[in-house]
Amino acid sequence: MSRMSDLVRQPAEWLRASGPMSDVVVSSRLRLARNILGFPFLEKLKNGQKAQIVKAVEESLKKNEALKNLEIVRFDGLTEVDLQFLVERHLISREHAGQKEAGAVAMSPDEVVSIMVLEEDHLRLQAFQSGLDLQKAWQIINKIDNEFDGSMEYAFNPGLGYLTACPTNVGTGLRASCMLHLPGLVLTKQVHKVLQALAKLNLAARGLYGEGTQATGNLFQFSNQMTLGQREDEIIDNLERVIRQVVEHEKEARTHLLSKKSGKFEDQIWRALGALKCGRIISSTEATQHLSLVQLGVQAGMLKINLTQQDLNGLFLLIQPAHLQKLKAKALNSGERDEARADLIREKLKNVTL
Amino acid sequence: MSRMSDLVRQPAEWLRASGPMSDVVVSSRLRLARNILGFPFLEKLKNGQKAQIVKAVEESLKKNEALKNLEIVRFDGLTEVDLQFLVERHLISREHAGQKEAGAVAMSPDEVVSIMVLEEDHLRLQAFQSGLDLQKAWQIINKIDNEFDGSMEYAFNPGLGYLTACPTNVGTGLRASCMLHLPGLVLTKQVHKVLQALAKLNLAARGLYGEGTQATGNLFQFSNQMTLGQREDEIIDNLERVIRQVVEHEKEARTHLLSKKSGKFEDQIWRALGALKCGRIISSTEATQHLSLVQLGVQAGMLKINLTQQDLNGLFLLIQPAHLQKLKAKALNSGERDEARADLIREKLKNVTL
Repeated sequence: MSRMSDLVRQPAEWLRASGPMSDVVVSSRLRLARNILGFPFLEKLKNGQKAQIVKAVEESLKKNEALKNLEIVRFDGLTEVDLQFLVERHLISREHAGQKEAGAVAMSPDEVVSIMVLEEDHLRLQAFQSGLDLQKAWQIINKIDNEFDGSMEYAFNPGLGYLTACPTNVGTGLRASCMLHLPGLVLTKQVHKVLQALAKLNLAARGLYGEGTQATGNLFQFSNQMTLGQREDEIIDNLERVIRQVVEHEKEARTHLLSKKSGKFEDQIWRALGALKCGRIISSTEATQHLSLVQLGVQAGMLKINLTQQDLNGLFLLIQPAHLQKLKAKALNSGERDEARADLIREKLKNVTL
Repeated sequence: MSRMSDLVRQPAEWLRASGPMSDVVVSSRLRLARNILGFPFLEKLKNGQKAQIVKAVEESLKKNEALKNLEIVRFDGLTEVDLQFLVERHLISREHAGQKEAGAVAMSPDEVVSIMVLEEDHLRLQAFQSGLDLQKAWQIINKIDNEFDGSMEYAFNPGLGYLTACPTNVGTGLRASCMLHLPGLVLTKQVHKVLQALAKLNLAARGLYGEGTQATGNLFQFSNQMTLGQREDEIIDNLERVIRQVVEHEKEARTHLLSKKSGKFEDQIWRALGALKCGRIISSTEATQHLSLVQLGVQAGMLKINLTQQDLNGLFLLIQPAHLQKLKAKALNSGERDEARADLIREKLKNVTL
């Protein structure tokens, strides 16, 4: 996996805070679930068939000019840390990492596109964009999907749409999601109200690494729950409309926090920076929480420091367990990681004066 | 009270960390309880008699060359904040401040000597020294005592010694005490063992402001419990011997903490500095605790910062409630003090780089 060592030092393109509303919306993601005609769903696949599917994807990449820039990485050459590293970068899911030997992922150099092979479905095509930009993500993933469709036949039913391993994905196979940074709503204790309202709209709220993960660092992932009976553009428009409302609420909450000129708010933000500048042992959860507050402080103009949102997004990624181990080029236990994390953060913040 | 505004910007001479073992022993104090013949003890004193006693002390100061540098301050001209300010500087006790109208205190410009008039006894003569220096304090207070004895007659019984309002002070009327900074014993969780051992030796351990106060900032005040049947030099030697042992234990604990190269220890020290450099709202208790750890870090050579122990001792005093209000020259409520305290600390630490 030649490129992994290059990846480790920089965040993905879509974490560069360059997209629309990226002070609140970290990223947008579209994912298409696809299965290849003539093969059973994953659970029933024999090992030989799994190998055939990976091979078929490889062939598609090779022979298709538009897919040539995608590099395929087979899991059988990877360590546990490598797999965890790909999860941290959202190139693969936790469930996909569980495939170990059989799985593979194809990704573009800028990490905007990743294709998980043998996740819950045979193929899961993903496109990421910075900020709220589901339209752009749709253009990208739709093009990739069409290219594949030309080189292999998908399992498709004219009445139902794309057939998927889990019924909730049947139809378009599309999941649209946005990762939002909502420190304002969390600090003003309004976030639960917002989450409840979204649940009523059939939108799921999750932690950073998808289903079953907790929100840390005030980061929330919102996505559509169902795909059957909805067109792609409906799903996307729907989510985008709701996300715009959440962004409004978040901005109001931030304005409120600032307008109160609350010493408590300022105190929290500065102390977060102090802990990051000073700590010698720091857990991932604590660091993430502090980085969230520092980000808010920078965006609110309260902290005048020479760190961009891109730097902070990048740091957020670099302090994850597998990233730390890749950076140090050795296995680290939990205590060692907490020290390495603190060292890395202090190094990155060394020019930030208080 | 002309001098009080001068006092507020600097710590007392005995907080200057210039004395023996002042890396552990902040200060030594001797106090003599004295009553004037021909007057009942405080509880039975009529107002007119109280005024007579204050007057008598004033006269003694005036006519005695050796006492002339003592300035007398009558409580009737003071505000609540003024009184609290004197308590914070240990020039008077909390109980003494409760006398309000009637009380008075005479003090030397360097605050080494203070004479509480109408505390529990008619007179309480105190001498302070930096570090472990009870002998020097004894020379000073003994001289003051002799001077007074020449100008007014003490209540004295040849069999019992000096007569005092509380039986525990009868005899020499001497209380010897030392204020110790014991972060090492606290962090290594040995302090309770030490306190238990001292209790068996009839030595009292108290918080910073005497009886009934809690230890904050890892500061403990140790003193003899009884005076009857013991000579002054016995009391002093006794306390000094024990204090030397406690100092040994504390130093061993600090060495142990350092030798473990414990990241946790370093983490605590640096985070304390970070909270002081960054906090916008900080309580007295929190600030004191952090200052204690920073002091330990400086003494242990872990923190290379341009702050001396004297600076830190001074800061410890300046952040107390009445000091803050004197500095700001206005009354501050608790919330305002927490902000003013954080501001002051940041100002004092502004040249400390992390």
